[in-house]
Amino acid sequence: MRLAELSERSGVPTATIKYYLRERLLPPGERITATTAEYGDAHLRRLRLVRALVQVGKMPVATAREVLAAVEDESLDHHMRLGAAVWALPHDPGPETETPETAAARRTADELLHRLGWRYGLETGPASPAYGMLVNALAALARLGYPHAVENVLPYARIAGELAVADLDLVEEYETPAEQVEAAVALTVLLEPVLLSLRRLAEAEESHRRFGSDA
Amino acid sequence: MRLAELSERSGVPTATIKYYLRERLLPPGERITATTAEYGDAHLRRLRLVRALVQVGKMPVATAREVLAAVEDESLDHHMRLGAAVWALPHDPGPETETPETAAARRTADELLHRLGWRYGLETGPASPAYGMLVNALAALARLGYPHAVENVLPYARIAGELAVADLDLVEEYETPAEQVEAAVALTVLLEPVLLSLRRLAEAEESHRRFGSDA
Repeated sequence: MRLAELSERSGVPTATIKYYLRERLLPPGERITATTAEYGDAHLRRLRLVRALVQVGKMPVATAREVLAAVEDESLDHHMRLGAAVWALPHDPGPETETPETAAARRTADELLHRLGWRYGLETGPASPAYGMLVNALAALARLGYPHAVENVLPYARIAGELAVADLDLVEEYETPAEQVEAAVALTVLLEPVLLSLRRLAEAEESHRRFGSDA
Repeated sequence: MRLAELSERSGVPTATIKYYLRERLLPPGERITATTAEYGDAHLRRLRLVRALVQVGKMPVATAREVLAAVEDESLDHHMRLGAAVWALPHDPGPETETPETAAARRTADELLHRLGWRYGLETGPASPAYGMLVNALAALARLGYPHAVENVLPYARIAGELAVADLDLVEEYETPAEQVEAAVALTVLLEPVLLSLRRLAEAEESHRRFGSDA
């Protein structure tokens, strides 16, 4: 398809598509003449992913480019490409300075991974951004005097395990490995606000059930 | 306790405490002399909550003041105070303009609440910020061509229900209604990064299990 059709089918204005092409967020089309190029379904899919990252995920263009590089890296096996792409997603930075709270939070995180039997997490955890984000969040709970022991966090970790199963079930509905990697990244980002808003609605419901005036 | 002890026990510098007092994020102490005031355990607890909202939740002072007003509103029953405080938490704005996607997303959200039997959500949902955030997130999934049907979202809603049970179990470990309302707000904010980081760690684990080279 030509640029105009790509724009129509994706709902993305041609000027924006040209910007993404210039910023190398979208691979170039196949050149037909000096001024026209041909685009395929892979471009359409990639365009959706870019929108998910940049528009919904509010990701800076440079960060999105890193995430896409991981999505495209064919030297990695399927699992590693999934992992590398999610790895590159923006995240809270890990602890900047080591304090007694961050050291304790690190021990809690390790004990948690151990108790869950998350072997992969135990091997790569300490180096991963998600692990740093977890340590930071646990240290904040501890510093402010809120529950932060392994026992307090364990129910959340088990629930996160169920989320991951739901996430990968959705991902496996896509046919090719390339589509699966793209969907894994887009859905990790796009389902965060779905999850956080449903949690607040569920909290209201559960609170009504426990404490409501007709409870 | 005096200001110096409040600072020592909370780990918050006296200058910061004075700033919170001026900004009415912290109620004044009981005046003893013209220059000194006495603070109690309620101040210590409130100080923790303010840190959770402002420092960890990155909430603007004006927003934190609104959330705290809801926490303090004794004209509301316990459930309503919990709800009002979480209601006031910052959130993505709902859809700004009505498009075919937002209209369809609204129908999906309503059908979802109906299927879950979340009666409280059905009554107050359409007016609540969390409902607006959900509609926005579903519309984004639809616009970008990712799964967004009731069946796709239902597993996440059921998991959100489990989260709410874990949240309110933690909250009920606090003794007084005032402490419970404060903890509900702080934990809603502080556990979001815990949950999102655990989801990414669990995704890596699940992906390793399904697609890893030794799977």
